[in-house]
Amino acid sequence: MSDRPSTPLLDRVRNPSDLSQFSDAELERLAGELRAETISAVSETGGHLGAGLGVVELTVALHAVFDAPRDKIIWDVSHQCYPHKILTGRRDRMSTLRQKDGLSGFTKRSESPYDPFGAAHSSTSISAALGFAVARDLGGACDTGHGDAIAVIGDGAMSAGMAFEALNNAGHLGKRLIVILNDNEMSIAPPTGALSSYLSRLYAEAPFQDLKAAVKGAASFLPPPFREGAKRAKEMLKGMAVGGTLFEELGFSYLGPLNGHDLHQLLPVLRTVRQRATGPILIHCITKKGKGYDPAEHAPDKGHARGKFDVVTGQQKKAKSNAPAYTGVFAEALMQQAAEDSGICAVTAAMPDGTGLDLFAERYPSRCFDVGIAEQHGVTFAAGLAAGGMRPFCAMYSTFLQRGYDQVVHDVAIQRLPVRFAIDRAGLVGADGATHAGSFDVAFLANLPGFVVMAAADEAELKHMVATAAAHDEGPIAFRYPRGEGRGVEMPERGEVLEIGKGRMIRQGKGVAILSFGTRLGEVLTACEALEARGISPTVADARFAKPLDRELILRLARDHDALITIEEGAVGGFGSHVAQLLADEGVFDRGLKYRSMVLPDIFIDQASPADMYAVAGMNAKDIEAGVLSVLGVEVMDKRA
Amino acid sequence: MSDRPSTPLLDRVRNPSDLSQFSDAELERLAGELRAETISAVSETGGHLGAGLGVVELTVALHAVFDAPRDKIIWDVSHQCYPHKILTGRRDRMSTLRQKDGLSGFTKRSESPYDPFGAAHSSTSISAALGFAVARDLGGACDTGHGDAIAVIGDGAMSAGMAFEALNNAGHLGKRLIVILNDNEMSIAPPTGALSSYLSRLYAEAPFQDLKAAVKGAASFLPPPFREGAKRAKEMLKGMAVGGTLFEELGFSYLGPLNGHDLHQLLPVLRTVRQRATGPILIHCITKKGKGYDPAEHAPDKGHARGKFDVVTGQQKKAKSNAPAYTGVFAEALMQQAAEDSGICAVTAAMPDGTGLDLFAERYPSRCFDVGIAEQHGVTFAAGLAAGGMRPFCAMYSTFLQRGYDQVVHDVAIQRLPVRFAIDRAGLVGADGATHAGSFDVAFLANLPGFVVMAAADEAELKHMVATAAAHDEGPIAFRYPRGEGRGVEMPERGEVLEIGKGRMIRQGKGVAILSFGTRLGEVLTACEALEARGISPTVADARFAKPLDRELILRLARDHDALITIEEGAVGGFGSHVAQLLADEGVFDRGLKYRSMVLPDIFIDQASPADMYAVAGMNAKDIEAGVLSVLGVEVMDKRA
Repeated sequence: MSDRPSTPLLDRVRNPSDLSQFSDAELERLAGELRAETISAVSETGGHLGAGLGVVELTVALHAVFDAPRDKIIWDVSHQCYPHKILTGRRDRMSTLRQKDGLSGFTKRSESPYDPFGAAHSSTSISAALGFAVARDLGGACDTGHGDAIAVIGDGAMSAGMAFEALNNAGHLGKRLIVILNDNEMSIAPPTGALSSYLSRLYAEAPFQDLKAAVKGAASFLPPPFREGAKRAKEMLKGMAVGGTLFEELGFSYLGPLNGHDLHQLLPVLRTVRQRATGPILIHCITKKGKGYDPAEHAPDKGHARGKFDVVTGQQKKAKSNAPAYTGVFAEALMQQAAEDSGICAVTAAMPDGTGLDLFAERYPSRCFDVGIAEQHGVTFAAGLAAGGMRPFCAMYSTFLQRGYDQVVHDVAIQRLPVRFAIDRAGLVGADGATHAGSFDVAFLANLPGFVVMAAADEAELKHMVATAAAHDEGPIAFRYPRGEGRGVEMPERGEVLEIGKGRMIRQGKGVAILSFGTRLGEVLTACEALEARGISPTVADARFAKPLDRELILRLARDHDALITIEEGAVGGFGSHVAQLLADEGVFDRGLKYRSMVLPDIFIDQASPADMYAVAGMNAKDIEAGVLSVLGVEVMDKRA
Repeated sequence: MSDRPSTPLLDRVRNPSDLSQFSDAELERLAGELRAETISAVSETGGHLGAGLGVVELTVALHAVFDAPRDKIIWDVSHQCYPHKILTGRRDRMSTLRQKDGLSGFTKRSESPYDPFGAAHSSTSISAALGFAVARDLGGACDTGHGDAIAVIGDGAMSAGMAFEALNNAGHLGKRLIVILNDNEMSIAPPTGALSSYLSRLYAEAPFQDLKAAVKGAASFLPPPFREGAKRAKEMLKGMAVGGTLFEELGFSYLGPLNGHDLHQLLPVLRTVRQRATGPILIHCITKKGKGYDPAEHAPDKGHARGKFDVVTGQQKKAKSNAPAYTGVFAEALMQQAAEDSGICAVTAAMPDGTGLDLFAERYPSRCFDVGIAEQHGVTFAAGLAAGGMRPFCAMYSTFLQRGYDQVVHDVAIQRLPVRFAIDRAGLVGADGATHAGSFDVAFLANLPGFVVMAAADEAELKHMVATAAAHDEGPIAFRYPRGEGRGVEMPERGEVLEIGKGRMIRQGKGVAILSFGTRLGEVLTACEALEARGISPTVADARFAKPLDRELILRLARDHDALITIEEGAVGGFGSHVAQLLADEGVFDRGLKYRSMVLPDIFIDQASPADMYAVAGMNAKDIEAGVLSVLGVEVMDKRA
């Protein structure tokens, strides 16, 4: 603990009400301590660093001025909530962040009354805050009472249509509601889109506004020194513009831009807003992601998410793997296809790095489109590209594809447009926990008529599936693959075009057949080794396709074995359900079949390592082994851990 | 045919290129004929009337100026496309509109090359048009060639976040793209939201602008008479404002507002735009929904959707039913609950009439929220209301709930917030066809941990389910019910709170059990009558819950019968899949069970009457009867139709 920062003021904070004991000057020092504490905590656990550092002063100011949990402070996405967690009674558990049984990396209602609304996907905070504001005005019975509803939302998150929908509705309802636009000109990747340019212009024009212009329309919200026009006020006003028309047109009062790292600006403005706000108000704060920590400020991603690191050097303590990560395999394979086919293009929704499309964009800048946090638009834009004769790959995490589901159904599936969905982070993802799990995509895609749905069993399969998708012009096609490294299998020089709807045999055994869809195949094979030691030799097949199913393969497996077990990294309703439907339709159950379907259990699984999460899910090798023994009715004498 | 309107000019139009033969004055007369033809056509078939009448002049102008299908005219929602269909080679099939094997009520790629992108849900047109524009500039291989991409979108549709996402992305990319904002201050219901007020202000301020101000920033797009400042031009400019800042901030050139019924304004502006546009441009047209047909103009919904009607009187020829419609039962039941519980409130996304919440809003205006076409926001807003201690009912059509899926997963399910989802239009819906089918909700909801998913078997059950949902504070709960009239069952005075996860026995038989989820129960009972005549007496149960399943009931049915058939108005992955998972888990299949799951087939079913659609789906009484006979191995000697 010797290298922990000295935090005399922070040590006196048990919960946010303790901030009332501090003068503004002390709050400023407290912010410094909070920053050091945040860096120290994340250096030990890894996690989202840059976003939290960018809102240290804002966090202090909000908790100093407002009265949480009565006032509801709602952090959008909430990966910036670490300083908030430290101030709200969770400081002593920060070392458990994002680990099994530890604190979540996001806000979470079940974790603390100071987290009135959990998040993890972006752009929900204004909607939620509006819900609280309306519930307050209607006299809703809230455990923590009702006060102000405050949404803190980044400029990147503001590009999502949902945020616009919420602004539009809030402006119409006219309820007292506070939206703090945390503008760091940076979401995960540099934000794209016209709104981002607009916000930059607001900022750029700000210093040239004089006092009179600056207070236009917002005078009543300005703290006394502003209205008195003192010299100091003028200085403070450097950051304030006449801009914000866009927000004003939507019915919000606009205040800003403020320097979000200057408590001398934040505190008086927030105090006055708290005193006087009547309707919806948007406070525009300019912050720096990674603020106050050089290695973060100077990183291209501003220290967005880190593994454990050395505080002094900023160097990450990451173990290197030998096997390539699936994301990288996808990107390489796509570039290989694109080199030969000028029709191939790619769409990402603000995740160029996460999906590997940053590499693609470097090589094919005119064929790569980052639409911002805008999955709905992204999917339909890809459909338009396909209708216009291109071969678009829409690369999204499974969990984010949920945002564009209706567009997948309507604009892609019903029209049979050949959009290729590269679904990254399929299955359980680790430290990001339940909110980022890719559990439902197979269920919500495989029942769409005309859709082809694949899952890669390993990194070589992924390469084949990219080639297969590129070649598939007949309709929509999706392939899913997990977060993390592959199995280290030999990589083919080129991806092969797979026959649609055909699985592959992995090993021929007898008695029991295991039909795997996705990367559980590795665990299945490990289980088989253990089973061989017991004299049980399962047949194993890789289904490759959840749709169309390999009917012939499945019916053969069912016919030739006493038991058939399917396994997939997804919830019920997906691959196994389609297999069961086939078996039922074909009357296979009539004559008896020991059929089992291993799917994710009916719980949201909290963060842990992926392996630990799959242990909770009961889908690791030993669970598969136990499942086989159980279905065969073999008594297990040697109970292993 | 004697009462058909006289249409000498329209009779000369086989496809849009024929419009080049007409002078502007003739185009004006053509518009008159097209309006009369549209009214006449819809009077015979029923359908969406008001929207089409509002864009007659716009349709003529677009086809006169642009070169479809090379230029892509994309109608948002596309219920306004009837005049477009008449001009694009489908006039002789207008009498088949929205009927089995007839024309779709929406644009449809498979129907015509003049429909470059199908629609039915709102707010997709800008995304699709941007896709075409980018594909054009990248040299995509499009069958119809590449020209301009033109999105025609209503002001109501503009409130959806997706439209904003698309504007934001289009403004950023800067491609040549034409967006026509068809502003009729009217979506289906009067539009709500701050954007709508903003558009009204643009319009209201317009007449007061002088020429110089009006042309600010858009001079190069104005047709010659405008720039020359002639007297006539001044008059034409009455409709043009300096406004549009919001769109300009997003990177669009803004032109308007124009009078969308005045070809003297539309034609020169569109011609000039076609000649000179370089980047994205938004043309703001003011139109009147129902324009030119008194009975529509004066209806509260401006003739949004009609049954067949008498052209002269406007009176609808609708047959009255004796049974109450499900939508009305829901609304009445909700009001009954709300009378006793001030915590109950309701959220609709621009469908107050369709969901019955218009009645609720009349009685409880402060507790009813129409968020606009904004399902994403609507769901999370409801989650916020629930977190704030209210008991929100989120009333949405099954098909539209797809728009808020991620929010259902994250903001509701993961947080276990007691949002009540009233899912209208579950199953096949009739004339609106595949795009409005509610086929997937059970599959995409029932695998969410902690969710309760119900389906009403009849209108009395629906009333019970409203009461059950109102009483369920433990987590999210959904109940689905179809479009149309109930079965005419006796209605209880009050809804009863059902036991969660408990089904009910309907009739005890033997040999075969049918477990119904939803309103197929009526068909099941009809099938049973026919089966009794053959000496077969099925057991019938109403599952009520897809989640949690009534394990005891299901296992008992399986144990006591040779065959078990489930039936539901949904796709695979839903109720039947959950039953199969249970049966597999419990080893029921090990010893053999004739299990069948009747689900919607793996096709998108085109419009027809719901009964005809269910015939295509193979889910009517005689299909159920055949299914029972088949599973029992009974030879059917008397093949009936």
